[in-house]
Amino acid sequence: MDIKALRRAARKIFDAAVAAVDPAEAIRRHLRREGNSLRVGGQTLDLATIRQLLVVGLGKAGASMTSAVEEIVGDRITRGVVVTKYGHVQPTKTVRLHEAGHPVPDAAGMAGAQAILDCLRGATAADLLLVLISGGGSALTPAPVASIALEEKQALTRELLACGADIREMNTLRKHISRIKGGKLARAAAPARVVTLILSDIVGDPLDAIASGPTVPDPTTYADALGILDRYKIREAIPASIRTYLESGAAGKHPETPKPGDPVFAKVQNVMVASNIQALRAAEAESQRLGFTPLILSSFIEGETKEVARLHAALALEVRSSGLPVAPPVCFITGGETTVTLKGHGKGGRNQEFALAAAFDIAGLANVVVLSGGTDGTDGPTDAAGALADGETIARARALGLNPRAFLENNDSYNFFARLGDLLLTGPTRTNVMDVRLVLIG
Amino acid sequence: MDIKALRRAARKIFDAAVAAVDPAEAIRRHLRREGNSLRVGGQTLDLATIRQLLVVGLGKAGASMTSAVEEIVGDRITRGVVVTKYGHVQPTKTVRLHEAGHPVPDAAGMAGAQAILDCLRGATAADLLLVLISGGGSALTPAPVASIALEEKQALTRELLACGADIREMNTLRKHISRIKGGKLARAAAPARVVTLILSDIVGDPLDAIASGPTVPDPTTYADALGILDRYKIREAIPASIRTYLESGAAGKHPETPKPGDPVFAKVQNVMVASNIQALRAAEAESQRLGFTPLILSSFIEGETKEVARLHAALALEVRSSGLPVAPPVCFITGGETTVTLKGHGKGGRNQEFALAAAFDIAGLANVVVLSGGTDGTDGPTDAAGALADGETIARARALGLNPRAFLENNDSYNFFARLGDLLLTGPTRTNVMDVRLVLIG
Repeated sequence: MDIKALRRAARKIFDAAVAAVDPAEAIRRHLRREGNSLRVGGQTLDLATIRQLLVVGLGKAGASMTSAVEEIVGDRITRGVVVTKYGHVQPTKTVRLHEAGHPVPDAAGMAGAQAILDCLRGATAADLLLVLISGGGSALTPAPVASIALEEKQALTRELLACGADIREMNTLRKHISRIKGGKLARAAAPARVVTLILSDIVGDPLDAIASGPTVPDPTTYADALGILDRYKIREAIPASIRTYLESGAAGKHPETPKPGDPVFAKVQNVMVASNIQALRAAEAESQRLGFTPLILSSFIEGETKEVARLHAALALEVRSSGLPVAPPVCFITGGETTVTLKGHGKGGRNQEFALAAAFDIAGLANVVVLSGGTDGTDGPTDAAGALADGETIARARALGLNPRAFLENNDSYNFFARLGDLLLTGPTRTNVMDVRLVLIG
Repeated sequence: MDIKALRRAARKIFDAAVAAVDPAEAIRRHLRREGNSLRVGGQTLDLATIRQLLVVGLGKAGASMTSAVEEIVGDRITRGVVVTKYGHVQPTKTVRLHEAGHPVPDAAGMAGAQAILDCLRGATAADLLLVLISGGGSALTPAPVASIALEEKQALTRELLACGADIREMNTLRKHISRIKGGKLARAAAPARVVTLILSDIVGDPLDAIASGPTVPDPTTYADALGILDRYKIREAIPASIRTYLESGAAGKHPETPKPGDPVFAKVQNVMVASNIQALRAAEAESQRLGFTPLILSSFIEGETKEVARLHAALALEVRSSGLPVAPPVCFITGGETTVTLKGHGKGGRNQEFALAAAFDIAGLANVVVLSGGTDGTDGPTDAAGALADGETIARARALGLNPRAFLENNDSYNFFARLGDLLLTGPTRTNVMDVRLVLIG
C-alpha cells in the first residue's frame, strides 16, 4: 500500500473509531424501546408502570446524549435538566440544557447542580431517573455542602494540586464535601429506580471516578479524607469551613458517602455506553475491512507524549526491519490519553505533538503513517483533532524551510502541521472517549 | 497459569533468549567448517588456499568470540590479538587477549589498537582476516592519528557530549581522527580477504555504528565533521591538534575515510552473528513452548525507562480488561535499551528500574509478571541482570515496611528487589545484545 492510500486509510479508520462512540449512537445501542417496553443494561422496564420519567445529566456530551434520550423516550419524559459546557447546547424538547463553566467551576455550575437536585425532589419508587454522564461532569456541577463556598472548594483543589495529590486522593476529598459526587446523587434520587448511562473519558473506565461517580458506591471515608490532608500536611492550610466539615463528618455528625452494599444502590444501575476500547474496536474493524492486519495494543496508555510516540515508532521500525510481530499491511491501534510537559510557547495538543515526535523516528521509512487524534475533535487549545505524519514528513518540512526540531521543542506542533497541510480536522464531534492512535505500515 | 508458574516461565524465557545470543554459539552458527572448507556469510572459502589466517577483535565479548573461533579454525590461525575489557579474559590458544579500559579509553587500549594494526602488517591477498566485533569495541581501542593525544581525543568527546551532539555526530568526528574506525581497519587489512563477525549492541544494528564500523564504509567527510563543530560553535573550543587535523583533511592533505564502493571493501564481508532480535525470537520460541501466545513488539525500544515501563504495564492492563490483542496466556516480548534520568542516589540499573516502575501500574492485577534483564547479566553498576515484578510486588514490599515510591524516586531499584528476593541473577553472560523485557499474563 503506498503512502497516499495509507493516509486515506488512516483517516477512514479514525473516523470509524469516532463514529462508534457518538453519544447518540451509543445511547441508541443501550436504550432500546418497543412500545412500552424499554430495554436497558440487561433489564426490561415497562414504561406503563412508571409514574414519572426524570432525566438529569452532567458532562460535555450532555446535549447529544439528551437528544438521543429524547428521541427514544421523549414522549414519556416528565422533566429534566442536563448541565453542559458553555456553547455545547442544541435544541431539546422537554429536558432543559443548562450551560456552565469548564474546566474551572463557576456559579452557573452551582446553579446547575442545584437544578439537578431540585429535579429529583419528591421522586418515588414508581419513578425512573435516567442519569447522563460524560467527561467534565465533575467540574460542571460543583455542589459543595451548604457550609462551604465555591471559592473554598477551589482553594482546596489548588492545595491538593500543589502538594502533588493524585486523582484518587482528590476524589476522596471532593466526594466528602459534595452533595452530588460519591454516590450522593443516587441517595438523593432514592427510592426511584436509577439508570446511569456513562460515556467514559478516563483511562480504565473507573465508574467511581468518571464525573466523581454520582451514582456509584464510594468506599472511602471522612477519616481517609483527613488522612490525606495529614499525609500532605495541609490540614491547617485548607479553608476552615472544609476542615470543620470533614472533622465533624469523621465524628459522625454528617452522613458518610453511601458505601458498596448500601440499600441506596438497590435500584441503581450504571451502564457504560461508550469508552475508549469501543473506539479502538471500531478502528480494528475498519482497518481489517481496508485490508490491514489490525492489532489493538492498549486503551490504557498514559505518559509523556514524546516517549509514547517513540514507542509507537519502534513498532513501525520493527515491522519494516523484520516483519514482526505481523507482516504488513498492519495497523497498530492504541488509546488512552497522554500528557505533555510544556517547555515552549507554541500552539498544539498532545495528539499533534505525538505525530510530530513520531515523525522523527519514522523519518525515511517507506510506507509508514502515524495518526493521533482526540475523539472530541479538539486537541488542546486548537481547532484540530490531531495530525498525521509519515516517513516523508520531516523531509517535506525541511524542504519548506522549517526546522522540525525547533517546532517540537517549542510545543508548536499545530503550526508545524498547518504548514504541511497535515492537521487532522474533524470539527467538534460532541463525544469524548480520549484519544485514538494509529500506526499503519503498508 | 498462577503467579509461581509465571515467574518460573519468565526466567526460563529470559535464559533462552540469552542462550541464543551466546557469542560462541553465534559464531558456531555463522562459521562452519568441514575439513578445509570454511563456510561464512554465504561464501565458502578453501582453507588450503589461504596463506595466513589472522584474527583481530575488539569488544566486551572478545574472549568468548575468540574461543569459538579457535575451536573451529584454531589449527590454522597464524596469529591474532583481541582487545577486551579488564577482567573479561579467559585462556586462549594462539590469539592473544589484550585487556584495556572501558567505558573510559586508556593507554592500554591505545596499545591494544596498535597491536591490532601491527598484526595486519604485511597481509597479502592470499591472507584471511577474521575480525571479531562486539559492544564496547570503540572505547576499548582508541587509535587517534599520530598528531592527536589520547587526552585530546577525550577532551573532544567531553565537548561533544556537553553540547548535546548525537551518536551519529560523535561517530562522524571519531571516525575522522581514528586509524581504525570508519572503515580504516579494512583499509589497513587490504588486500587481504576480511570477514567481520559482529555482535550488535546498538538499537537497529547499524553496521557503521557498532564499534564505529572498523570494516564498514563511511559516507561522512572531513567537511561534515567540521560542519558539526561549527553547528555547535565548538570549533575553537576543541584541542588545536584535532582542529588542525580536520582542517588539513578537508583541504585534502589526509586521506578520507573509505567511502561506499571503495575498492578497499571489495573483499570485505560484514556478518551480523547475534543481535537483539535474535534474543527476542528465542524468547518467542521458548514462551510458545511453555504454552504462551508470544508477541514480539519491537527490538527498537529506547527512551526513558519509567515511561517505557508504563507502556508495558498498559499491555497487561488491556489483556486483563478485554483479552486484547490476544487472550491469555500471552507473553509480550520487547528489546532495545532504555535510559534512566538519574534523580536519586540509590543503586540500580535500567532493567531493575523498569521492573519497579511497572510494578506500580500492575499492582493488584492477578497473574501478571514483568521481567526486564540485560543480556550481559550486569544491569548498571550491579551484580544483577535485572528484576522480576508481579501484581503483588508493591503489596509485598509494603508488608515488609518498604516505601516502593521512595525507592523508585531514589533510583534504588537494586536494594528494593534485593529485599524482596526478586533480583534476576545470572552472573556475567559474556554476551551483550542489549535488553530483553517480558510481560507475561497468565
